[in-house]
Amino acid sequence: MIDKPKAIILLSGGLDSVTVLAIANKHYECIAISFDYRQRHVSELNAAKAIALEYEVRHQVIRLDDAVLGGSALTDATIDVPHQLETGIPVTYVPARNTVFLAHALAIAEVNQSSDIFIGVNAVDYSGYPDCRPAYIEAFEKMANLATRAGIEGHKLHIHTPLMEMSKAEIIRTGIEYGVDYSRTVSCYQADPEGRACGVCDSCRYRKKGFEEAGLEDVTRYQ
Amino acid sequence: MIDKPKAIILLSGGLDSVTVLAIANKHYECIAISFDYRQRHVSELNAAKAIALEYEVRHQVIRLDDAVLGGSALTDATIDVPHQLETGIPVTYVPARNTVFLAHALAIAEVNQSSDIFIGVNAVDYSGYPDCRPAYIEAFEKMANLATRAGIEGHKLHIHTPLMEMSKAEIIRTGIEYGVDYSRTVSCYQADPEGRACGVCDSCRYRKKGFEEAGLEDVTRYQ
Repeated sequence: MIDKPKAIILLSGGLDSVTVLAIANKHYECIAISFDYRQRHVSELNAAKAIALEYEVRHQVIRLDDAVLGGSALTDATIDVPHQLETGIPVTYVPARNTVFLAHALAIAEVNQSSDIFIGVNAVDYSGYPDCRPAYIEAFEKMANLATRAGIEGHKLHIHTPLMEMSKAEIIRTGIEYGVDYSRTVSCYQADPEGRACGVCDSCRYRKKGFEEAGLEDVTRYQ
Repeated sequence: MIDKPKAIILLSGGLDSVTVLAIANKHYECIAISFDYRQRHVSELNAAKAIALEYEVRHQVIRLDDAVLGGSALTDATIDVPHQLETGIPVTYVPARNTVFLAHALAIAEVNQSSDIFIGVNAVDYSGYPDCRPAYIEAFEKMANLATRAGIEGHKLHIHTPLMEMSKAEIIRTGIEYGVDYSRTVSCYQADPEGRACGVCDSCRYRKKGFEEAGLEDVTRYQ
């Protein structure tokens, strides 16, 4: 039996990243990484831990310094999480979050001699974040190949975004095919300590809409 | 009096980054950032703190998680720091270090509404690190503009590398013009707790050579 190549999976514990893990896990030996940045929705992190155990993959929780990833409703308790979809860049945008996450993934990939990083960004049913667009991911991949041994030694590093062109409904249908149990994932920006969702934030609305459009029962646990 | 624009300066406490701070400080309100990644040369971090105080600039020391920035002679006590210049990528290369550093700088820049990041990378007297090359910096800048509000709202973000094309001797001469006291900087990869240099590692050799070629007295404190 040939060893599977290693891949680094950004696993938040939400619906998208768990679907990505299920996809990547078929072809790669996965190392899941999650970030503790004192996010308000810490139950998402607990979901990530439980899911990594379920999939029997290595899991690293990386603690980010409090000085970074501020200035967002997701990290600052003084900014309210809005209850309706906003236009433009929403207050839940966390400055440079995906760049900080992918930079860590890149370091861990290089140390583990992995050339494959998976991230569950999506350009269809997304929240207007600049760092979810295909052009951003392409630019990061190009930069990553110049940043590391890969660029000099010739084994190209790939940033995989299997969900990029899918609607939320397609993501859910794909995940179901791969056997994902979505009742265990937490997408809500302000879930309670048991991981039950508020049902009214941006993220909950996209998720609800996804189950509706997929014609599937919404297995989310609500407060 | 018009307020100076804000800039984020990556300040390691070594010769190069202190020169960059001295240059940037003429035109910007500087926010210096340093990283605590359990580097063996922690006296460099102490030098950074002292220098930020001297220049009266805001200084943030960002603690990186132990899981990142491993696999290098600079972070792993089981790998010896070599005593001569190597060919290829040296063992002192820290995987994706500048990408992790710049990603944090980008987050802090965005929170502080700054469009300017300064880093003391150098493509002349450098150690063969992939993430010190001009093509890497250009790729990072391009990615950064796609990653953040800057890319959407139109105020372009710049990564400044004032030392990129300078020899070590030119860097030292420039710093002296700007009034830098190099006896306070620590470049050595294995300086002692008082910040005294070993005199034999890569970094010490480049620094020594710089003072010689600049025709200036080497003010470095050796062990």
